[in-house]
Amino acid sequence: MKVAGLFIAFEGGEGAGKTTQSQLLADRLADLDVSCLLVREPGGTELGEYLRDYLKSDRPLSREAELLLFEAARVELVTSLILPALEDEQVVVADRFYGSTVAYQGYGRGLDLDVIHSLNHFATRSIAPDMVFLLDLAPEVGIKRAMSFQTTFTEGTSGELVALERTREGTRFEDLDMEFHHKAQEGFLAQAGAEPQRWVQVNAMQPVDEIKDEVWERVRERLFPAATAKPRTARKMAPQGELWPQAT
Amino acid sequence: MKVAGLFIAFEGGEGAGKTTQSQLLADRLADLDVSCLLVREPGGTELGEYLRDYLKSDRPLSREAELLLFEAARVELVTSLILPALEDEQVVVADRFYGSTVAYQGYGRGLDLDVIHSLNHFATRSIAPDMVFLLDLAPEVGIKRAMSFQTTFTEGTSGELVALERTREGTRFEDLDMEFHHKAQEGFLAQAGAEPQRWVQVNAMQPVDEIKDEVWERVRERLFPAATAKPRTARKMAPQGELWPQAT
Repeated sequence: MKVAGLFIAFEGGEGAGKTTQSQLLADRLADLDVSCLLVREPGGTELGEYLRDYLKSDRPLSREAELLLFEAARVELVTSLILPALEDEQVVVADRFYGSTVAYQGYGRGLDLDVIHSLNHFATRSIAPDMVFLLDLAPEVGIKRAMSFQTTFTEGTSGELVALERTREGTRFEDLDMEFHHKAQEGFLAQAGAEPQRWVQVNAMQPVDEIKDEVWERVRERLFPAATAKPRTARKMAPQGELWPQAT
Repeated sequence: MKVAGLFIAFEGGEGAGKTTQSQLLADRLADLDVSCLLVREPGGTELGEYLRDYLKSDRPLSREAELLLFEAARVELVTSLILPALEDEQVVVADRFYGSTVAYQGYGRGLDLDVIHSLNHFATRSIAPDMVFLLDLAPEVGIKRAMSFQTTFTEGTSGELVALERTREGTRFEDLDMEFHHKAQEGFLAQAGAEPQRWVQVNAMQPVDEIKDEVWERVRERLFPAATAKPRTARKMAPQGELWPQAT
């Protein structure tokens, strides 16, 4: 089924269920024969996966370099996969995007937010998701989940969720103190509060299926609006991201 | 011998002799028992060498991500090695620094120079070399040299240069067309012209020993000035690098 391109991101702290919900949404779109690109950050490209390996390790890394690695992975992903998919009118589902950088490197690590906005503007090539689902969860609960396992649903023969694969991939962030994670949560909530037309806050304490339905309801409205459909809002960054001049 | 910290960079196109001259200068300083840190970009740290491997390969890389990788390697090097060495009043000798990013990614690749200045400002933690030696060479000659071999001098038992090791390490840039290299040369010359108090232009067509002596003459003046020594100029970026607010 051909639909106008739509860019959807999932954001939230560790263990909030972003990977699970991204996959569930992509599966639902596939069931409806909607062309969909599912990506994760950092990753999704040869460079992104190369950088992910370093970022997920405990090898030495300053907070400034960490920021630049995430942005390098992002610009590669946007340039080589996300922009072409949107131009091809596909739906793009991203497991994390620039909101995580604002929350983790900005609010969490304490790096200058103006620098981060400028870098995000450069690395996203000035695009922003049409919809961001913030899976909000008390950090204590999320970390406990993330430390125990990561859940991946896979599709059964008739499309239903039958298999549950549990893997464990460390991150650079899980082991930080709870103060870091509370600041990051504050960063996510601040972004959602500042752009309520773009961000949808979802209670991630709900069962997986309820979150899935809540997300789908919002995506369905957007993808298949009533007959009197309005044009979609432009996929442009908010003004605070415009510190840098555009490359000509 | 204890001297005030001094930061010296070598810049120039492929095959200009930066690696050779950096090593020769470091050897000379060692002979005089001056504490010296010799670094290369990208590289010099665990992250830098990891990124160097990717940058030197022919794996896919957008020009925007390439820029961010160089800056990530730089901020890691500055944070973990260069700043501590300068604070310890050592002499730092760098084989390439931010001037290469202006020349290659700015003039060569055509990325926005304001973005590059801002990123350099962030990645250098606002420091700049006290002296930059631009080894200037017609790109045609440099590429021919670089494509044939890279020369590394190693020190003999009594400090003299006895061994000559020839290795071959590809770069992402040698294979680009000559127009790229001419633009990069223009970028180096523009920087040298804009900051003559910092940049020293050296004719890299001269024999290795003559370049070595010319460099040493300038470094010696700076390290061991006459009795009426003036304070060194501040190691701050030029105003055009100040687009970003400082992190607090």
